[in-house]
Amino acid sequence: MANPTAAMLVIGDEILSGRTRDANMYFLAGALTKQGIDLKEVRVVSDDAPAIVAAVRALSAGFDHVFTSGGIGPTHDDITADCIAAAFNDHIDVRDDARALLADHYASTGRELNDARLRMARIPDSATLIDNPVSIAPGFTVQNVHVMAGVPNVFQAMVATVLPTLAGGAPLLSQTLRLQRGEGDIAGPLAELATEFSDLSIGSYPFQQDGAYGANIVIRGQDGARIDAAMIRLRGLFPE
Amino acid sequence: MANPTAAMLVIGDEILSGRTRDANMYFLAGALTKQGIDLKEVRVVSDDAPAIVAAVRALSAGFDHVFTSGGIGPTHDDITADCIAAAFNDHIDVRDDARALLADHYASTGRELNDARLRMARIPDSATLIDNPVSIAPGFTVQNVHVMAGVPNVFQAMVATVLPTLAGGAPLLSQTLRLQRGEGDIAGPLAELATEFSDLSIGSYPFQQDGAYGANIVIRGQDGARIDAAMIRLRGLFPE
Repeated sequence: MANPTAAMLVIGDEILSGRTRDANMYFLAGALTKQGIDLKEVRVVSDDAPAIVAAVRALSAGFDHVFTSGGIGPTHDDITADCIAAAFNDHIDVRDDARALLADHYASTGRELNDARLRMARIPDSATLIDNPVSIAPGFTVQNVHVMAGVPNVFQAMVATVLPTLAGGAPLLSQTLRLQRGEGDIAGPLAELATEFSDLSIGSYPFQQDGAYGANIVIRGQDGARIDAAMIRLRGLFPE
Repeated sequence: MANPTAAMLVIGDEILSGRTRDANMYFLAGALTKQGIDLKEVRVVSDDAPAIVAAVRALSAGFDHVFTSGGIGPTHDDITADCIAAAFNDHIDVRDDARALLADHYASTGRELNDARLRMARIPDSATLIDNPVSIAPGFTVQNVHVMAGVPNVFQAMVATVLPTLAGGAPLLSQTLRLQRGEGDIAGPLAELATEFSDLSIGSYPFQQDGAYGANIVIRGQDGARIDAAMIRLRGLFPE
């Protein structure tokens, strides 16, 4: 059976302006691969409501799961929750369960649960909350869209909450052979190997080191024995 | 006048599987911002022809410029050039100008211009070549789509070739104020400031350090004097 598919939507001007280097995509990609959920597409859009709504609708319709990061804090540029509600024609307001979480948290830390912080309790009616052990303000899931914070340690904590609730597939296994040869010298035999092992994915990732060309050949698939067989053939094609 | 808009398309299974952390998005975002071209969207797709073709068409239609990275090497998994031709219903084959570049290069380095390497001379008929001073095999431009290598130093060299040929806009200027206060404490006044300076983009990027909450407030725009005025107001709102 084919693995479940996923897409990610990164929301934030700070990524597109080059101010911040995204870290959540790399983290999520690794976590999904381990669980056997195939990340098929990532989109990054700015803090722009029509762009967010359009991307949520397209990705929700196209993939089994969608993971979003960013835009659920208390400031005016945090518009993700309202955009998710709009994308699904859902009603959104401050919700009692989320408000209770925040009220407890701020009471215990002696800070005020003001109007800005209450924005973080704006949750679409149909959503289920995602636990946030780091800073309490919850993420949420609407249909197949999991809405999480952009701050990396909070994002990672929310991913750790959500992933165990999702059915995974066969984890994607991989083995890598590092070759000190230019891609142009290996491409012919490699293509034949890829045809022979068409049930596996064989990728070639070139590098340059100290002026010499090389490539990492990565063989991926769900059947470890098949990967072993392909690796043996690969080593035979390019003896060191 | 509004700045030109751009999108980026990152092509590669290695990013989506979590094997490789993308570096080109962060580089391109910074380079475009300096030149006054607004990066509005990034998509990452796998080495899958229908996905690449659909993304190229959508982004080419939606933005002034599209920059792609990845998939133009000599191996079987390098399918970007053929996908670009398909997206624009263009014919593609080994082209004489690209072949001549490769022939000179491999003659001078004593390596063979074999069939695999000749794949890198497959260029759509309507394309103009993008110079590659690092490893010679060219990128190319079809209509508003600039097709570049995924290896970061080659990608960067191609960006350096392409960007000076594009009309830029007013560079996006920014100033940042680091506040040692939680976003919830600053969000109210910050929203009012954003309304007053609606010609600027005011973003709040929270962080946690040694257990304390803070936020970097970034004010972006094209008019340095307006940014100065907003920064003075911002400092007045949150005196240290």
